Amino acid sequence: MARTSLQCRECKKQYDTAFKYICDDCFGPLDVKYDFPTVTKDTFSNREQSYWRYFELLPIEDKSNIVSIDAGMTPLTKAENLGKKLGLNNLYIKNDSVNPTFSFKDRPAGVAISKAKEFGLSAVGCASTGNLASATAAHAAKGGFPCHVFAPSNIEMAKIAQALSYGANYVAVDGTYDDANRIAAQIGDSKGIGIVNINMRSHYVEGSKTLAYEVAEQLDWNVPDQLIVPVGSGAMLNAICKGFEELESISLLNDVSNMMHLRKIPKR
Amino acid sequence: MARTSLQCRECKKQYDTAFKYICDDCFGPLDVKYDFPTVTKDTFSNREQSYWRYFELLPIEDKSNIVSIDAGMTPLTKAENLGKKLGLNNLYIKNDSVNPTFSFKDRPAGVAISKAKEFGLSAVGCASTGNLASATAAHAAKGGFPCHVFAPSNIEMAKIAQALSYGANYVAVDGTYDDANRIAAQIGDSKGIGIVNINMRSHYVEGSKTLAYEVAEQLDWNVPDQLIVPVGSGAMLNAICKGFEELESISLLNDVSNMMHLRKIPKR
Repeated sequence: MARTSLQCRECKKQYDTAFKYICDDCFGPLDVKYDFPTVTKDTFSNREQSYWRYFELLPIEDKSNIVSIDAGMTPLTKAENLGKKLGLNNLYIKNDSVNPTFSFKDRPAGVAISKAKEFGLSAVGCASTGNLASATAAHAAKGGFPCHVFAPSNIEMAKIAQALSYGANYVAVDGTYDDANRIAAQIGDSKGIGIVNINMRSHYVEGSKTLAYEVAEQLDWNVPDQLIVPVGSGAMLNAICKGFEELESISLLNDVSNMMHLRKIPKR
Repeated sequence: MARTSLQCRECKKQYDTAFKYICDDCFGPLDVKYDFPTVTKDTFSNREQSYWRYFELLPIEDKSNIVSIDAGMTPLTKAENLGKKLGLNNLYIKNDSVNPTFSFKDRPAGVAISKAKEFGLSAVGCASTGNLASATAAHAAKGGFPCHVFAPSNIEMAKIAQALSYGANYVAVDGTYDDANRIAAQIGDSKGIGIVNINMRSHYVEGSKTLAYEVAEQLDWNVPDQLIVPVGSGAMLNAICKGFEELESISLLNDVSNMMHLRKIPKR
């Protein structure tokens, strides 16, 4: 039996997991719902040094579908000097810049492309102006997928050079990043291409929460009192919050008294 | 008793380890000579995930002098796709771009600055046009040293922005990289500043050999048949060769039949 299902964030309608991301009834976004197996801290302690050590908490049914470039388990570095300057005794920096393609995007892209393999899709892609293109192209190359990167035609080539080096196809869109997203969505849906940040989004966003899992494990299963998270679309912030909440829900955290400090993202 | 001494590469004169890098008699460069303690594969297997796991093979006498930013133990990634294209079944890439300051220079800079601490120096620096400046500045910040980066005055600021972010002092030299080296050497020697790639060079070059140690350990203590190494000054190539030869000399390698393939650098 499948470990995951999909549920509409708006009307709560449930679906079996499938290559879909929008509710048939109300057009709300679909979220992954889990039936987590029993895990303990020991489940993870001696595993591979990548975010796939948390396999049981990720939306892939079969380990053979994992497409991994060994991303994650990046250093959590105590910033002594900066901490002193700021008057903070326990300041840590999670250094996701040393992921294989140099950004946290290796987390969501890897989960999305593994799921694309599980769905049996024949091609993948993304709309991106940089980091996501690199992460998607690297995982696509590893998984043997053709990869289509949709980006504005006036983008600096330096921003997609890394993706091109992994063999991605650059689809130059005569318009803005929003236009590139729109065209990627249309082509993805009509051709059955897994666009990681659009029609694979329900699974894609699940990858980012592994950053929270790692921080907790690296702090010996404790949660920081305060978190500072860069906010682009807000997706990573939401995912990190979800990660800590999930660890709390399956009783992996030592002390949850500071969980109240994690400000929840208001529901739409 | 000290584990290391210095020896002139030319006339072979020996010296106790000290803050010096040139032979008093013949002006030849000084190399570190070791009295390696007995080590086995098990000595290293459960240690920290940085190149300091090889402490016994590095020229620092006292562990308390280590200035570490957790560099090294970078991934050795099997390049399946590239290997297929090139007709190679066992092609691996050692990814030193995911070191803390993004290059292999964290290896020599870290050893040099640890040795500067052991020598009791009060400041450090380097002549550099980029990567070494970042690595030196990061280790200097960690060790609490003032850091002086000597570079041509017409350098693109992007190349030293990272060093500046670690608090380094940029000494803009009106001339070439060679001129910057010359001025750094003069100021370093007259002011007692440890210039990592000049007057600390005997110890500095020892850091780079850890790349070879890691490759051997990651291949379960085997040596690759062929190595492709980028050659700038040739220092890294030499150091990597030295690393494998040292592992052979202390009997840590499983099979040394392919060591003959390692082409030795001709002596000057």
